Amino acid sequence: MHATLKTAVLGATGYSGFELTQLLLRHPQLATPLLMRREGDAGPSTLAEAFPALAGNGQYALHPFSWGKLHDHGVDLLFLATPHEVSRMLVPEAISRGMRVIDLSGAWRLKTPAHSAVYGFHGTPETAALLDQAVYGLPELASEKIRHASLVANPGCYATSVILALAPLVCAGVIDRQKGIIADSKSGVSGAGKEPTAKTHFVSVADNLSAYSVFGHRHTGEILEQLDLRSQELIFTPHLLPIPRGILSTIYVHLAKPMSTAEVDSCFREFFKNARWIRIFPSPQLPQIQFSLRTNYCDIGFSLADDQQRLVLVSCVDNLLKGAAGQAVQNMNLMNGWNEAEGLA
Amino acid sequence: MHATLKTAVLGATGYSGFELTQLLLRHPQLATPLLMRREGDAGPSTLAEAFPALAGNGQYALHPFSWGKLHDHGVDLLFLATPHEVSRMLVPEAISRGMRVIDLSGAWRLKTPAHSAVYGFHGTPETAALLDQAVYGLPELASEKIRHASLVANPGCYATSVILALAPLVCAGVIDRQKGIIADSKSGVSGAGKEPTAKTHFVSVADNLSAYSVFGHRHTGEILEQLDLRSQELIFTPHLLPIPRGILSTIYVHLAKPMSTAEVDSCFREFFKNARWIRIFPSPQLPQIQFSLRTNYCDIGFSLADDQQRLVLVSCVDNLLKGAAGQAVQNMNLMNGWNEAEGLA
Amino acid sequence: MHATLKTAVLGATGYSGFELTQLLLRHPQLATPLLMRREGDAGPSTLAEAFPALAGNGQYALHPFSWGKLHDHGVDLLFLATPHEVSRMLVPEAISRGMRVIDLSGAWRLKTPAHSAVYGFHGTPETAALLDQAVYGLPELASEKIRHASLVANPGCYATSVILALAPLVCAGVIDRQKGIIADSKSGVSGAGKEPTAKTHFVSVADNLSAYSVFGHRHTGEILEQLDLRSQELIFTPHLLPIPRGILSTIYVHLAKPMSTAEVDSCFREFFKNARWIRIFPSPQLPQIQFSLRTNYCDIGFSLADDQQRLVLVSCVDNLLKGAAGQAVQNMNLMNGWNEAEGLA
Amino acid sequence: MHATLKTAVLGATGYSGFELTQLLLRHPQLATPLLMRREGDAGPSTLAEAFPALAGNGQYALHPFSWGKLHDHGVDLLFLATPHEVSRMLVPEAISRGMRVIDLSGAWRLKTPAHSAVYGFHGTPETAALLDQAVYGLPELASEKIRHASLVANPGCYATSVILALAPLVCAGVIDRQKGIIADSKSGVSGAGKEPTAKTHFVSVADNLSAYSVFGHRHTGEILEQLDLRSQELIFTPHLLPIPRGILSTIYVHLAKPMSTAEVDSCFREFFKNARWIRIFPSPQLPQIQFSLRTNYCDIGFSLADDQQRLVLVSCVDNLLKGAAGQAVQNMNLMNGWNEAEGLA
Repeated sequence: MHATLKTAVLGATGYSGFELTQLLLRHPQLATPLLMRREGDAGPSTLAEAFPALAGNGQYALHPFSWGKLHDHGVDLLFLATPHEVSRMLVPEAISRGMRVIDLSGAWRLKTPAHSAVYGFHGTPETAALLDQAVYGLPELASEKIRHASLVANPGCYATSVILALAPLVCAGVIDRQKGIIADSKSGVSGAGKEPTAKTHFVSVADNLSAYSVFGHRHTGEILEQLDLRSQELIFTPHLLPIPRGILSTIYVHLAKPMSTAEVDSCFREFFKNARWIRIFPSPQLPQIQFSLRTNYCDIGFSLADDQQRLVLVSCVDNLLKGAAGQAVQNMNLMNGWNEAEGLA
Repeated sequence: MHATLKTAVLGATGYSGFELTQLLLRHPQLATPLLMRREGDAGPSTLAEAFPALAGNGQYALHPFSWGKLHDHGVDLLFLATPHEVSRMLVPEAISRGMRVIDLSGAWRLKTPAHSAVYGFHGTPETAALLDQAVYGLPELASEKIRHASLVANPGCYATSVILALAPLVCAGVIDRQKGIIADSKSGVSGAGKEPTAKTHFVSVADNLSAYSVFGHRHTGEILEQLDLRSQELIFTPHLLPIPRGILSTIYVHLAKPMSTAEVDSCFREFFKNARWIRIFPSPQLPQIQFSLRTNYCDIGFSLADDQQRLVLVSCVDNLLKGAAGQAVQNMNLMNGWNEAEGLA
Repeated sequence: MHATLKTAVLGATGYSGFELTQLLLRHPQLATPLLMRREGDAGPSTLAEAFPALAGNGQYALHPFSWGKLHDHGVDLLFLATPHEVSRMLVPEAISRGMRVIDLSGAWRLKTPAHSAVYGFHGTPETAALLDQAVYGLPELASEKIRHASLVANPGCYATSVILALAPLVCAGVIDRQKGIIADSKSGVSGAGKEPTAKTHFVSVADNLSAYSVFGHRHTGEILEQLDLRSQELIFTPHLLPIPRGILSTIYVHLAKPMSTAEVDSCFREFFKNARWIRIFPSPQLPQIQFSLRTNYCDIGFSLADDQQRLVLVSCVDNLLKGAAGQAVQNMNLMNGWNEAEGLA
Repeated sequence: MHATLKTAVLGATGYSGFELTQLLLRHPQLATPLLMRREGDAGPSTLAEAFPALAGNGQYALHPFSWGKLHDHGVDLLFLATPHEVSRMLVPEAISRGMRVIDLSGAWRLKTPAHSAVYGFHGTPETAALLDQAVYGLPELASEKIRHASLVANPGCYATSVILALAPLVCAGVIDRQKGIIADSKSGVSGAGKEPTAKTHFVSVADNLSAYSVFGHRHTGEILEQLDLRSQELIFTPHLLPIPRGILSTIYVHLAKPMSTAEVDSCFREFFKNARWIRIFPSPQLPQIQFSLRTNYCDIGFSLADDQQRLVLVSCVDNLLKGAAGQAVQNMNLMNGWNEAEGLA
């Protein structure tokens, strides 16, 4: 039998970190993960303090972060559910200490300086080498690389929903890029993080919808890089929905040549034929946010105009699962040669 | 002093009809409107029966529909908040009896058979003449015609939000139509009507978002006709939001030649310089659904890409006010030579 | 090894029936359940037709109800997620055919005619015998009886939240019943069923709260019978919350003699010391609806006045799990000698 | 004709202050109010900066607070929508400068030290005199005093909903106080203020309900004082609803002697016969939060048990209107001899 993998989570009290922790706690191949907080001694000392919903479910201790603690526990795989600045700072040492890392922040996702500038990062020789080594952890596109990666940059939630819907068509070369691709995405509030702000106040969000970061959202670079698009070929517009979680992206493309509905359907099904966590909806049926909520699925549907060239794609993910923690577990499964669905079904 | 106008509302118990009734009841130029129901003798006999929120505010009687009643009350202006089939049936006689009509349904909005086919209408000599006479009641585009109209076809809610945002640019001829216009619209549930259905059940809508009627929504024809676009130049995709009311449309256009943000701003401000119910937001500020809720405003904002050609417009209306009842009152004001804001401010 | 139990669900397309089906599908001790619909040949033929969220997860067939089908499948245990009239009609034959039955409706919950009158039931010799045999399926109060029951009447959702919070105090005889017990309960909309009605329309529920069935809700009888209270000793008031699921009951009792917080806490912990699905919150911490959502827990907390006699209890359940399907599985586990948490953790 | 009253609002950027400002801006008897902010020079300089919904509606200036500014504008009536500490500090000087004051905070509501201790206030000779002078501004109970008051302590939102529902029965002496009065209240999130906190984060509130401040909410003292109840005769439990605004209180009383539904109804109608802003619902009809939303009404309904002694009251107010800003305007109307509905209808 396999040895039990030892994992640690830094940032278990954020939305993604907590979701991840819950997945790891019931993952059949793992020992109880080591849970760490960034706040040092001031923070909560158990997970239940931060999440009263855990009351009575066992008192998972939250330790202040320390390299010594990680070493003492013999941690093999470190999950970072931390702000990108923190991830940027910690990853080099973690790698040098021989741990594999799955980073849920945006710190190591972007290869080109033009894109990573949005995070305020400047390339250094050290980060250049690590960036080179980092694998963008979208299992449906890069499972082989992920298997052998030391550092997996877990994709952004919006980026996951947009890239997965577009990849089959982009790879098949059937899109007229000249006409531009539009990704109009809508996300629940947990995507904005747990920090209380004027923007996440209930009264600001309820009974409302707003667009934000038009032409300037950080996930744009991920979509461009992964699909090898030029900046002017894509518009990505995020919106804040009055729901706690879930993303729906409505994506508009123009086909270079007419295709039938059956051909588009085949293009998707062929591309994803081995993808455990993709569901293709038969046109005209379309996914809704509720369908993939609390699952690791990315649901994809489409509708084709009469001219057989204008194509509307709809893709949905749960931003905390396939858009964050679930995908991280899927990546861990790949990195350890386990079934991609282990701990997620 | 002016004579008091006599109005009637048929369909006062639907969402739009009720909203309209509330506006008419406090409009300074009107006698108490005659309220009628379509259900005949079986329906509620007062408005408070249908809307308990009115309890104690006076018992507005709801009368079964009859031409005699309309005649006895000397009704000058008839509002129809009825299904389009009913409007189609009643309008000819109402006009022939000398009443002016504002119809909130889709029955008389579309001039071309290609578009009105979506309502199942077949042209007849009688309807052709009336269609010819009917004025599409978007005050910002057709105030002169509305002033003299006998029959005003009050625009659809989605159509209002999309047409108003695009009209300045389309009229200025600055859009590259070849690249296509995308209108990605999101609406609250009252837009789907008061009828309880699986789709409007709270559990189906809450914590959800869904796209529907892709390439097939009835309001598409209105947008095409009013902006004189060809069918393949526009994609309009409606979505159902988990909120009671409000519409936000995110609209994507490609400018034929580069324009500065100031030029785009001027284009809007010039076009709407006399428009009482339009608010232009200075870029990069964008309207949100909450801002225009419970007002008759159409709020418009925009964001321009660095290339000065890719342009994202955001427009918001309250679907029951500027998207229905408020616009109907604005039309009534025009038809009677009153200030456009009368009864709406 | 144990033989695999064969189950069937009638009414799998309702909210409770669907929740139950999902639990049964992943229960480790069960064969795939036989799913049946009440609509006969007209209904959906797969579960995914009724619940598109299941798309791609396998096509579970929905069969029209027939005794022959149940017999052919060798069904041991029949779950009824049907209206009470249907349950009343089917249970006698199911029992006579040797199946055990867990009925999620109210049909067999009430022993006294005074209470069951609310369902329009009149006692007959046949139903009297069955009623006598039926066990009220609240595992924390009646696990022994449930183990040997042929017919389990699965409790109402409201009743579950109220009875569990009161039982320890009632059994300990510490309540001053003269002063009356108040149960002010609030429930999400799924408790009102899947039927679209004016009451469950999104626009009626959102941004709202309403009390209903004051002094007349069907679950009142269950609370009275199970706690052996007289009618005038309890007021139970349900409210409809603008959320999809979850119940919170705020319960007011007056202690006959002063007790300390520690004594009240002990009373609860002692009573529930073997209860796998009860969580007691240490005062002053109180449960919230979110904490038990999507779990089978009943969460209970309390706050004691300075006078040590006036006591406020707060209890929460997920109305579809501990309040319906989860409790049904818990009952099935007991009936088969399995761990109470099997298939629920 | 009457002279135009000059008003000022300090704290116009909070929820209540903003609601109040909107009411004052359209009140027919007032000059444009002077709007002031507490933040000094750092705060927003126009109301539209704080509330983008005002864009295009005129740029109402926000001035840093100063006594000189108030004097220069000749302010007659000062509204304080400030934290209670600030109100406590400013009111003495405002009064000494000859202004009348309506304070929306809790600073001057409570006469007895036992109750005001909850605000951390210690009596001083100066505050004692002012407290003595302060009038609790519930117009339905104290219109005469309010008319002549210099300092009106505008009631708490919860307190308004509870006191108004109980006052007729308490004043008639028909309640058996020995059995205790329970007020189980539920409020929308705007009642918790505009400050972003973990508690008001959208994700914490949505799909949730929670009880809080059990046996310890600040409004309890107001209810006790106004109804002349002893502490042990009342339990008041507030809950946080997942809606932006609105309060529903479910109140349980025991009548000393049996009364018929007609008698209870008469008791309410008689008591409130001149109350412009109270609506009594005929039993068994009950108010819902939606009914009084965006109005200044307090809606009251009831349901009586068969024993004619146990009585459930339901009362609803919009916490920002009848529970705050609307009531403040109603008080201003009284203080100036205007119709109570002026500026509110």
